[in-house]
Amino acid sequence: MTIADPVLQGLIDSLNAAYGLCLDDGRLEDWPEFFVEDCLYQVIARENVDNGLPAAVMYCDSKGMLVDRVVALRQANVFPEHFSRHLISRAVVTGSEGNTVTAEASYAVLQTRNDGETRIFNAGKYVDRFLVEDGAARLVSRTCVYDTHRIATLLATPI
Amino acid sequence: MTIADPVLQGLIDSLNAAYGLCLDDGRLEDWPEFFVEDCLYQVIARENVDNGLPAAVMYCDSKGMLVDRVVALRQANVFPEHFSRHLISRAVVTGSEGNTVTAEASYAVLQTRNDGETRIFNAGKYVDRFLVEDGAARLVSRTCVYDTHRIATLLATPI
Amino acid sequence: MTIADPVLQGLIDSLNAAYGLCLDDGRLEDWPEFFVEDCLYQVIARENVDNGLPAAVMYCDSKGMLVDRVVALRQANVFPEHFSRHLISRAVVTGSEGNTVTAEASYAVLQTRNDGETRIFNAGKYVDRFLVEDGAARLVSRTCVYDTHRIATLLATPI
Repeated sequence: MTIADPVLQGLIDSLNAAYGLCLDDGRLEDWPEFFVEDCLYQVIARENVDNGLPAAVMYCDSKGMLVDRVVALRQANVFPEHFSRHLISRAVVTGSEGNTVTAEASYAVLQTRNDGETRIFNAGKYVDRFLVEDGAARLVSRTCVYDTHRIATLLATPI
Repeated sequence: MTIADPVLQGLIDSLNAAYGLCLDDGRLEDWPEFFVEDCLYQVIARENVDNGLPAAVMYCDSKGMLVDRVVALRQANVFPEHFSRHLISRAVVTGSEGNTVTAEASYAVLQTRNDGETRIFNAGKYVDRFLVEDGAARLVSRTCVYDTHRIATLLATPI
Repeated sequence: MTIADPVLQGLIDSLNAAYGLCLDDGRLEDWPEFFVEDCLYQVIARENVDNGLPAAVMYCDSKGMLVDRVVALRQANVFPEHFSRHLISRAVVTGSEGNTVTAEASYAVLQTRNDGETRIFNAGKYVDRFLVEDGAARLVSRTCVYDTHRIATLLATPI
């Protein structure tokens, strides 16, 4: 087991902590800023990934699509009111080449609806590719490979 | 997204890890020691915070009140037997001025009662103010802003 | 509260992150590699530990037994299909002497079965003894002291 460079580890874990809080606070407009312009964000079932099937339940292949998703959430989509709470593990760096770094981190998104109970809405792992430059990390791609294939009602806000 | 100084990040994350274990182990008498004398500890619903309403479900505005709460738990209060388990995310430092640091960290408190099942008892985020001096951090204030507005039975032990 | 040496803290937290992902990915054959040859791994109820009772629900006192357990899981045991998801807190170093380090970390193992819902399968804390040499940490012993004394169906894969 290789130990990642502590500075790199810190950049990735800090990004993940800020990412979770951003979504949980409802600061959705900040969410695209974690990504580079030419990015990929998808939420896909573990079963599909394991079987080489590409269908995702959420798919954005540009920063513009991320922004669109937020606009849609604010102005168009209908979904149950909810609070989310992200619990994200320490990342495991899986590769590093030049200024590209790949890493994975387990996550659980808890959700609280109008009934006031908190349930596990979606659990899985982030499979990420980062661009690290000028002492900062940004997501080139984030694939949320989830275990929870029974999605309660619908997936509205990003994982 | 600014990256916090690693030493500071470590102080805060270490305090949170020790804090969680302290409460989960049932070492309640150690809990006030995470705070300075003139401190504030409160547990308040996210709805209230969002709407500027001040009523908290637990409120202590001095270290003495923290100590009193523990004495009450040991000698007076009646509540269901339970184990707790804190899962606390990496903190996000939100501000730093002199030796005062503000930070936030997502948390989930799991609870196991006599039936042996573990449920999500309370999830939310810690909104904290720390005093950092002599290489150590202590809490000036901790506000547990929780999502889980249906509290199972009652809130007895601190979050 | 003593702050652990950051390098040591990083070694332990990195081991825990890799450990969780190893089991969650289903890379069971990698699991024994986190341990030294003459190791101890056990999963035991908190009630038993609190009362000085030794009976564990899973017990392996050599690396060979860990390997056997994996072989049994692959070739013999019958259990419900499931995905697991480990959420492991930052560790608290509890002692350090020579190249032996003791530490504890809270954990929750979430489980998803064929119905697609994710539940809390087992929550507790790791009580660990590490051997730290040549810049790497390995487990001498890991005791999973769990709160969740109602185990859903059975405990098959390691915690």
